[in-house]
Order: sequence, then structure tokens, then C-alpha cells
Amino acid sequence: MDWQDAFADRMDLIGDTAVIELLKLAERPDVLSFAGGLPDAATFPMDAMKGVALQVFDDHGSMSLQYGPTAGYTALREWIADRMGKVEGVSATVDDIMITSGGIEAMDLIAKTFLNPGDIVVVEAPTYLTAFSVFRCYDVDFVAVDIDDEGMRVDLLEEQLAELERQGRRAKLIYTMPAFQNPGGVTMPLDRRRRLVELADRYAIPILEDHAYAELYYGQAPPPSLKALNPDGVLLVSTFSKIFGPGVRLGWIDAPPAVISQLCQAKLGSDQCSNTLAQRIVYEYGRQGLMDSQIVLSRALYQAKRDTTMDALERHAPPGTTWTRPAGGFYVWLTIPEGIDTTSMLAWAVENEKVAFVAGPSFYTDGRGTNQFRVCFSYLDKDLIEEGISRICRSVARHIERRHRVSV
Amino acid sequence: MDWQDAFADRMDLIGDTAVIELLKLAERPDVLSFAGGLPDAATFPMDAMKGVALQVFDDHGSMSLQYGPTAGYTALREWIADRMGKVEGVSATVDDIMITSGGIEAMDLIAKTFLNPGDIVVVEAPTYLTAFSVFRCYDVDFVAVDIDDEGMRVDLLEEQLAELERQGRRAKLIYTMPAFQNPGGVTMPLDRRRRLVELADRYAIPILEDHAYAELYYGQAPPPSLKALNPDGVLLVSTFSKIFGPGVRLGWIDAPPAVISQLCQAKLGSDQCSNTLAQRIVYEYGRQGLMDSQIVLSRALYQAKRDTTMDALERHAPPGTTWTRPAGGFYVWLTIPEGIDTTSMLAWAVENEKVAFVAGPSFYTDGRGTNQFRVCFSYLDKDLIEEGISRICRSVARHIERRHRVSV
Repeated sequence: MDWQDAFADRMDLIGDTAVIELLKLAERPDVLSFAGGLPDAATFPMDAMKGVALQVFDDHGSMSLQYGPTAGYTALREWIADRMGKVEGVSATVDDIMITSGGIEAMDLIAKTFLNPGDIVVVEAPTYLTAFSVFRCYDVDFVAVDIDDEGMRVDLLEEQLAELERQGRRAKLIYTMPAFQNPGGVTMPLDRRRRLVELADRYAIPILEDHAYAELYYGQAPPPSLKALNPDGVLLVSTFSKIFGPGVRLGWIDAPPAVISQLCQAKLGSDQCSNTLAQRIVYEYGRQGLMDSQIVLSRALYQAKRDTTMDALERHAPPGTTWTRPAGGFYVWLTIPEGIDTTSMLAWAVENEKVAFVAGPSFYTDGRGTNQFRVCFSYLDKDLIEEGISRICRSVARHIERRHRVSV
Repeated sequence: MDWQDAFADRMDLIGDTAVIELLKLAERPDVLSFAGGLPDAATFPMDAMKGVALQVFDDHGSMSLQYGPTAGYTALREWIADRMGKVEGVSATVDDIMITSGGIEAMDLIAKTFLNPGDIVVVEAPTYLTAFSVFRCYDVDFVAVDIDDEGMRVDLLEEQLAELERQGRRAKLIYTMPAFQNPGGVTMPLDRRRRLVELADRYAIPILEDHAYAELYYGQAPPPSLKALNPDGVLLVSTFSKIFGPGVRLGWIDAPPAVISQLCQAKLGSDQCSNTLAQRIVYEYGRQGLMDSQIVLSRALYQAKRDTTMDALERHAPPGTTWTRPAGGFYVWLTIPEGIDTTSMLAWAVENEKVAFVAGPSFYTDGRGTNQFRVCFSYLDKDLIEEGISRICRSVARHIERRHRVSV
């Protein structure tokens, strides 16, 4: 069989193997990897898990291995709805919540439910690179809106939406991560959030708010979510990957019930229902208050890693290097002098300095970001962060020097 | 926000809420449901699960809650590859196998990887109704090939492929369930299997072989899989849902490595990786030989239920009713006199006899099957099967009688 001929056209759009290669890099024991956005396994509740799992087997019995409702385990949905109120100030009932197989599936279900080929999706520039794997499957067009230190530049978005309107076009979805953005590490302040939801509302464009890191703040909580500011216009996607553990592959969507019922139709043809056993484990764990304790410890751990990363950058970064200072989440975004290509610098750094990160262009729709890269500081231990950042900085210095030699 | 206007065109194609309604019916405690294809929870390994889960927490530690490779946990893939050889006589290596989040995700990944809008998918008539939820998302055309007591009629398929060729068209995928077909309960004999793979090979059309029930045989094992007959031309999809428990949402694909790598690209935008914890539990469980023991017990249990179902039908079915006699799997397919609409009969039966099944048209592309329906005998206990079948038969008799009165 000639398989190459048999694949669908969309495979040409999602053929970038960057993420799979990243995960492979992260597995090479000789490389210090700041590449994949993996949580620190030290935050995982291994001790509590045993008790909780046994309790699920005892109390829930065989229901924990049976099919479950497409929208998710009802008690977990209720618990999330309640928690959305307590933690986020978002009023939600069980009908607003569905359980998904992680944040990616949540985004895929939204894409499947809303996007026709050729539809326009607004993304941040740079944006979460796996979002491209999701959206490109649906053969959409992107409108990329630059970020600054306060997240998506809503002034630019306004111009771009007006320009689209002049062309007789309209964006179908706005994808944004206002809290501790991946990869930018930046957070949108309240006034800009208000302007964003007003603008989206004026144009009647749903917002997909990626809430993955919002609870992992280091000082103050971030401003109210977009969902809290406009419950009817925002589809909030979140995940247990960063506040429990990604291995259970569970996330949720908070959206108006009319949307949830369509998303459930879409989920029937994606995986029918999410992992029942994992849902019951997460429910029991959460119900006992253990997730809230875990989150408090995670914040302290990641804050310490952020501090180590910042200190190391201060000490080692060559002149001409700038970086963001995240107040939560996992990521620092670095910009180095123009003319250095971070994609080839990465290949050099892996071979010569045994250190990995993600080169900038992966986060853009249009190949920009050649002199930028993302460092994820969540995974490595603190002493390895110190060592790894110094290796990255040596790689940058070496490339600056080399560029000088070339231009002289 | 006016959500109805915002949904993608494909939502009109997958708007049939039959499956979601079925799962709701199955939850109504006053209704004996033969509707959903749920395994009997008595087969689930609840006792062994505790030991296996604790072992995973102890031996695998925090890796069981971390992200895993997109293709799946390597040790589980190796174990499946080895088992494909031992159980199925299919030679496979780890590169031929990927783990999916259940059989539905496996089918969705194949659809995403292969199908452009307007492509032709060959399905059996009748076929697995959730396959429609999967394929319709990709806006494909169906060619439906009737089944008889030996599964898909390959003679008709040959005619239909020749007719397509005359029109300058070609099918892109053949979806078939040769062993204990859902909903037909029929199995394809070896000679027809050979003709099917030869025909597909001649036209260079990949076969998606749904292997979900193949190990749940009651006497003899079914003939060799299509995969065994033509390893390079067949994408075999199977699931742990029926031989372990659906709650873990795990399945697998056995396909040529060039296809597996594309399917992994597709999976990045679907859910990135499958449940790590569940993969490690299933691996430990399988490695200890516990799955093989479970399957032996499951065969005996389902065979007894099949026998009860057949006996009850023999005793209660009114004249003019025929049914298949499955040699494995979960399903019996019934045909009643023309002129009785099983969709309205179902509504009547739920209200008046407190019994549920699935009406025939849900399994066809074109609304046929109005005088047919599916009975799933796997879920209810034997005494309830006896009672439920008598209720179904009373419903049929009542409708035959009523039709007589109308025509007289």
C-alpha cells in the first residue's frame, strides 16, 4: 500500500513534528530540558493517591470501570461548578460544566463544534504551540495578534477586527490565555480584560479562554477571568494537568448549556466519555480538600523555581538578551539579538551544551520569533535550573560572538 | 450570544442524539435496557485492581501521573505487540502499535488522518452506530454494503467498487467488523475474509478492521483477522473496553509504522497522549496474565447470557420474527414483520413495558431498518434478560396485532 498517497490533506497542515521531538528530547537523560511544559512530579500526590484509589474501588466499585456519561461524572461536574464559584467567582451549575480528556481535547471539541474550513481564529503571537495542532486540523485561517507585557494587545485586535469587517469577514473564535501565558509568561490586567470581552461581545465572537495556569500564581491571584467578566460569551477551558497530574488526562469546559450539549455531541465521536476511573479519583481527591492543599505547595515550588531562573538569567545572560518575569505558570520568554536563529542555536545547544528549549518560530503562525525562545522552568530541579540556564546563556553568548565574527 | 448561529456545519451532520439518549435510558432504574453496549460489570477485575493499582503507585511512582509519549506507554505497546502474535497470529513490533483513548478515538484518529470532505467510506449495512458520529464529522459520503449471516456481502462490495470506478471515483476506507458484528451479531468466514482483503488490495483501499469483540467468542475462535491475512493493508482497531473495562478508556491500533507516525501527529491535536495511569495499570494487569483469565471467564458469562437470550426468544417471539444467533460478542439483530416501525415501538415499549433496545434505522445511512432492532444481552443479569426479552416480545406481538387491526 502506498500510504503517503492515502493521507488526508489536513496532514500537510499538522506535519510539524516539533512537539513529538520535544518530548523525545525531554527523555534524553544527558540533556537538561527546558522544552516540554511538564509539571514537576514532586507536586503529584503519590501518597494520597493510594488511599484515594482504594477508596474509589471500595466505595464506587465497578462503576469506576464502566462507561460514564459523555458530559462526565456528575458528582465531579457538580464539584467543579461549585469550585468555579468559590475560586473564580464564576457562577456555574452542573449544566455549564463538561469533563474532557485534558485541555487539548477541550480545545479540539470546541474547534470541532465551531469551526468550518476557512474560518478565522484569532490567536496570540506568540501562542501555545499545540493550539496549532488542534486548529490546523480544521483548515482555518489565523489572525495573529501580538502580545506585550500585558498579554494580547487588544488595541491591535480592535484594528484587525475592523479591517476584517471592511473586508466583509468576521473572526469565528478568539483564543487567548490571559493568565501566565504560554509561552510569553505574561498576564493581562483587568482593564485590558474588560476591553477584550467588550470587543468580542460587540463583534459577537466567542472567546476560548485557556485557564490552564491561572491557579498557579506566585503572589497575588490574577485578575478575574474573562469568563467571570462575561459568562455568556466565554468558553473557559481548564485542566487538572497542572493542579493534579497530567497522567489522568482530565480537563473541563465551563460554557453555556446550549454549547455544552453540542460539545457532548462532538465528544461522542472523539472518545465517547472520559476516563471514569480517573474522574472518580480526582473527585474524591478534590472533595477531601487535597487538591487545594496541593495547589498551595505547587505555587511555592514553582515560585522558587521562577526565582532561581530569574537569578540565573541575571547572572549569566549576555548583553542584548531580555526576558519576561512571570508572576505564575511555567514559562519565560526570551529575546536575543536579531540575526541569531534560535532553531539552529537549539540544535547546537543540544549537541554542545546538552541543554534544550523551544525555538521561537514554533509559537507563531508566520515563522516570526527566529530570535526568541521559550524556557520552561517547571520540570527541572532547582540546581539543574541554575546549571541549565548557564548553559543556555553560554549558547547565546557563543552565537552572539559568532555573529560578530561573521559581520566583522 | 446567539450560539445556534455560531456552530460549524458539521454539527448538522452529527446532531443525532440517539446514543446520548440511549445512555440516559440505560440509567433509568425502572427500565430493563438492552440498548447500550455495556459490558457486564461482573467481569471487571475489582479485586485484582487494588493490588495492581498499589503496585503501579509503588513501582512506577510519579511517572504514572506524568505526561507520556503520544504513541503510548512503551512497555504496554510491546506487550500488545507480543500478544498480537500469540493471540492473533499477527506479527507486530512496538512500532506497529499505538495506544488510543478507547476504540472511538482510534477510529477518529484514522478518520482524521485519511479522510477529506467528500471522500467515500464503505460501511456495513447495518453498522456500528457510533461510527457515524466519528465519520460524519469529516463530511464523508457513505457507501453501505448489506450484510448477511456471514457479514459484509463482498460480492455486493465488488459490484459497488466497480460501479464507483466507472464513475471515476474510489472509496477511501472500508470499515468492517468481521467478528461478532455490531449490531448484526454475525461473523465473516475465512473464504469471504480472503476475498475482502484481495478486493481491497486490488483497489488499494485501506481496511479499518474493528476487532472490539473478537476475543469474546463462545465456542471456536473466529477465523484469522483481516490484519493477519494482509498486514500491510489493514488498520486493526481494538479496545480494552470489553476485555478489561471501558472506564479506563484505552484501545490500540495495529498499523504499518508509516501510518502510526501520522496517527500520532493527529493525536497531538486530539488529546496529546492517553491516560498514563490507566496504561500502567492495564500493563501490569496484562503482564501478570490476569487479562487472559478475565477473558476466559467473560466468554463463559456472555455465552450463558446469549443462551438465555436465545431460549427466551424461542419461547416468546411471535411468528414472523427472526433473529441472528451470535457466536460471540454482545448483540442479537432482530427482524420483525414489515410495516411495524421499531422507532415508535421503542417509545411504546419504554413507556408500557419498561424495556429498551435500539431501533434499526440508527444503524443505517439511509433510514432503512425500520422493522429491525438491536438487542444487547451483555449488560443485564440472566433473570432480567429472560424477563426483558419476554417484554420485548410482548411489545412486538402487540404491534403485529395492532397492524392487523389497522389493515383489516
